[in-house]
Amino acid sequence: MPTDAEQACFEAGIKFGSLYHQFAGTPVSPASTRSLERAMAEAIENQPYCASVSVDILDDRVEAAIGHENGYTELTGSLMEVEMRIEYRDRTVRTRMEMEEGYPLMKLVAVE
Amino acid sequence: MPTDAEQACFEAGIKFGSLYHQFAGTPVSPASTRSLERAMAEAIENQPYCASVSVDILDDRVEAAIGHENGYTELTGSLMEVEMRIEYRDRTVRTRMEMEEGYPLMKLVAVE
Amino acid sequence: MPTDAEQACFEAGIKFGSLYHQFAGTPVSPASTRSLERAMAEAIENQPYCASVSVDILDDRVEAAIGHENGYTELTGSLMEVEMRIEYRDRTVRTRMEMEEGYPLMKLVAVE
Amino acid sequence: MPTDAEQACFEAGIKFGSLYHQFAGTPVSPASTRSLERAMAEAIENQPYCASVSVDILDDRVEAAIGHENGYTELTGSLMEVEMRIEYRDRTVRTRMEMEEGYPLMKLVAVE
Repeated sequence: MPTDAEQACFEAGIKFGSLYHQFAGTPVSPASTRSLERAMAEAIENQPYCASVSVDILDDRVEAAIGHENGYTELTGSLMEVEMRIEYRDRTVRTRMEMEEGYPLMKLVAVE
Repeated sequence: MPTDAEQACFEAGIKFGSLYHQFAGTPVSPASTRSLERAMAEAIENQPYCASVSVDILDDRVEAAIGHENGYTELTGSLMEVEMRIEYRDRTVRTRMEMEEGYPLMKLVAVE
Repeated sequence: MPTDAEQACFEAGIKFGSLYHQFAGTPVSPASTRSLERAMAEAIENQPYCASVSVDILDDRVEAAIGHENGYTELTGSLMEVEMRIEYRDRTVRTRMEMEEGYPLMKLVAVE
Repeated sequence: MPTDAEQACFEAGIKFGSLYHQFAGTPVSPASTRSLERAMAEAIENQPYCASVSVDILDDRVEAAIGHENGYTELTGSLMEVEMRIEYRDRTVRTRMEMEEGYPLMKLVAVE
């Protein structure tokens, strides 16, 4: 039988994979970052055991990723930072996505 | 050579397919419909020739689709109405997605 | 510090959420179930620590979900069964998605 | 009333937007390009009026996009070429996606 902590970590992973693959590829520009951040957070917070989600799409990286003609780019892991708190029974799991050596990495920060 | 009207219709179709397949499957509840509507509209308005998008996620259909245990459902065509206006050179195309005989249908409303 | 078992469970969850939200909404009919199963499995097996994925799209449920006019439906959790094996350092995690009381449930089957 | 040619172009656009936003972000490596190409083509061919779809994921570009550590990348427009034939009543529309000046462009090739 998995422990509550293991189950909590499994649930935390589900939320991260869901958030990433649901929204990666979304057209984004500095004019639409705030609404996308909020929709992503509120969508994933609907999922079970998901206590809070914060999404920070980095305007300066969006600007840098936009080509000279288009005016927009597509959302990818390198353009955002994400934090989540998962609560499963007595356990709380904290996770974070951030760039590490040029790659977006989903990290298990703490299991409490 | 395609005409400007044909090109405008092609562009209109791209926006509809993009909106639908980017966001279908997103977890949604009455608590998150407004933020999702706004993010969908602003995301697709980033695309070229897309003058305006309005997305209406129907709270009563979301409620009806939610199972008794979950508290949320996944976005699908039967839960929303969408209108778009595409402008390509001198042409304006109006499109609409709505339920027809039980299916969500993407319709070319007018080519002006 | 998370344990190796907890980390393995987190990785397992990521793969499940990725698989589900990448492919939910894909147009599917009995003519295309085999190619979709294979592409889903091979895509997710690319991810780190993912030792094996098996996807079984149930033709009879696809048939039942297809409306009388369309000839196809959209992939959702109720149309498939999925099994995965995740290997992280010395730990192996087995997961499974199947219907339970009318809902598709992602389950942590074993942590070894 | 839109003409048959305009309707055919609208349908062609829908298929392109669907294909792109359904599958962009899928984990891909040289080991999984063939199964993904096939699943993409067969999925979109399910949609109405879609006579044929061919997807060519370019192994050399996939290789070039893969980082030194990961072993895989995410599908994006710059890694593939797509051709479609749409048939609506008496009209046939041919479309193509390919790179142009560094951007993937969805093009209306012919309306016959």
